Amino acid sequence: MRRIGVDIGGTFIKAGAVEEGRLLSRVSVPTGGDQGDDAIFSHIYEAVRLAAEQVNDTPESFAHIGFGIPGAVDSASGLVMRCPNLGGWKRMPFVSEWQSRYHLPAHIGNDANCAVLGEAVSGAAAGEKNVLLLTLGTGVGGGIIAGGKLLEGSDGLAAELGHLCLVPGGRRCGCGMKGCLEAYCSVSALVKDTKRAMRRYPGSAMHRIAEENGIIDGRTAFDAAKTGDEAACRVVDFFCEHLALAIGTLVTVFRPESVLIGGGLSNQGRNLTDRLNALLPPYVFASSLSRLPEIKTAALKNDAGIIGAAYLDRF
Amino acid sequence: MRRIGVDIGGTFIKAGAVEEGRLLSRVSVPTGGDQGDDAIFSHIYEAVRLAAEQVNDTPESFAHIGFGIPGAVDSASGLVMRCPNLGGWKRMPFVSEWQSRYHLPAHIGNDANCAVLGEAVSGAAAGEKNVLLLTLGTGVGGGIIAGGKLLEGSDGLAAELGHLCLVPGGRRCGCGMKGCLEAYCSVSALVKDTKRAMRRYPGSAMHRIAEENGIIDGRTAFDAAKTGDEAACRVVDFFCEHLALAIGTLVTVFRPESVLIGGGLSNQGRNLTDRLNALLPPYVFASSLSRLPEIKTAALKNDAGIIGAAYLDRF
Repeated sequence: MRRIGVDIGGTFIKAGAVEEGRLLSRVSVPTGGDQGDDAIFSHIYEAVRLAAEQVNDTPESFAHIGFGIPGAVDSASGLVMRCPNLGGWKRMPFVSEWQSRYHLPAHIGNDANCAVLGEAVSGAAAGEKNVLLLTLGTGVGGGIIAGGKLLEGSDGLAAELGHLCLVPGGRRCGCGMKGCLEAYCSVSALVKDTKRAMRRYPGSAMHRIAEENGIIDGRTAFDAAKTGDEAACRVVDFFCEHLALAIGTLVTVFRPESVLIGGGLSNQGRNLTDRLNALLPPYVFASSLSRLPEIKTAALKNDAGIIGAAYLDRF
Repeated sequence: MRRIGVDIGGTFIKAGAVEEGRLLSRVSVPTGGDQGDDAIFSHIYEAVRLAAEQVNDTPESFAHIGFGIPGAVDSASGLVMRCPNLGGWKRMPFVSEWQSRYHLPAHIGNDANCAVLGEAVSGAAAGEKNVLLLTLGTGVGGGIIAGGKLLEGSDGLAAELGHLCLVPGGRRCGCGMKGCLEAYCSVSALVKDTKRAMRRYPGSAMHRIAEENGIIDGRTAFDAAKTGDEAACRVVDFFCEHLALAIGTLVTVFRPESVLIGGGLSNQGRNLTDRLNALLPPYVFASSLSRLPEIKTAALKNDAGIIGAAYLDRF
């Protein structure tokens, strides 16, 4: 049974035809978010049409079309509750607007939630019913599947995992609160901590690595730590300890089968996840009573959102 | 449609007939947990039979029987995963053992989860699909309904909210971890903090109140704080700040319609919840974007577990 998944971003709409969890086609068209709702919908339809065309088909022949939206959604009613990156929508009846134009059945979901769905369909957590995804990028995002259902909350704003309070009264977060996970474990926070350590330790290998790469980024400290550089190890340890603590609390609350790491930092692969798996046990309640979930990197990268959106009817 | 709910405790089995969320009968029989499984099951059946008899009925005529178990359960397979307070059961096929004896269809759930179900059926969160219950007693327990389903996790151990890490590296908790919510916001923690403050402030009104009541308990500091006693206010503020912080993080993750406070401390009523509702907003991500949940005391007290168990087939 073929489906279509659409990942609607502020800049590009990405769409693909999906079968048995595999992406058969992939297209990208500009969103044109400043041209009004009619334009946005016709661009979305165009992406859908092209994705179908690439597999010699028409949108009308697909079993399901799902849309990942970069904002809070009420999936049951098909409303986009708010979406600052897309038309500033508030309580926008996306599904009925779509259906009134194109007569094609559809579901919507939050884009981060679609990513965890994709991983649970055919990615690193294929077939699992309890999955937690942490996306470590400029910010920290998340998505949760609990008991085979997406966690959306009463207002579509659930699973904002970047803003769970990790350190009471701690670092000021961009959101205005203090001590948020994002203020410790985003790539932005890691880069700040890396720069701070580099200023303090002029002899650290991080300087050489940053120079070779022409940039100080999320890899600088991790790469230098591999050489045994002490200042870099301290940056990486601080980062991983905080992340393990947050994952430990989330595991205590959700007891998932897997915890997935997505976003830019997932490129570290086992260099990151091996550390996290080793650090996790003391941060999980009753960790000896039950198998701990494995912390793994997400597998589908940018395709996760498209694949997950295609299966929104299932979750 | 009549149902039977059973709350199986380490000492007593409580059962009741339930109709439209109301308890029609209530019986209690000793569990006899040390007499072996056959005895436990026959005591359970006896409780069920008596609860039915009180409404002039037989167990066989009820639409559903549900059991709240004081341990981790896999509700889908009907297994009690572990239950130190009851026969030390591990992967015990409770539902099939029950059905092989009495041929009555049944479901099982964790007892704290049954309490939140009861509140969502006919208590303080009647009809709501996203509810969080924190039980503040000797320890801190919890139950969560998300998207109309109980949060049970992959191993039935989910929602151990007393052991989310509130203060990294903080107070040692009885579970062996550091900084758990339970180490700050259980009645036991409150009593310890009260005693510490009383030693430090011999002139505090807490001394007079403790003497009048013949005990230092969870009410001492709250009662003294009402008179404006400064040392007591500090104890209460510390307690409430930590609880609001924990609730804030849980609201950020789950976005429930309501947060319910159960257990001994819920007797404080609005004296506690008014403070918590006032303290909550700065601890919730994007608190201005959406209506915040109301923090309320649980309504059904000890009946919640029986009523919730009766509706385990619905969640």
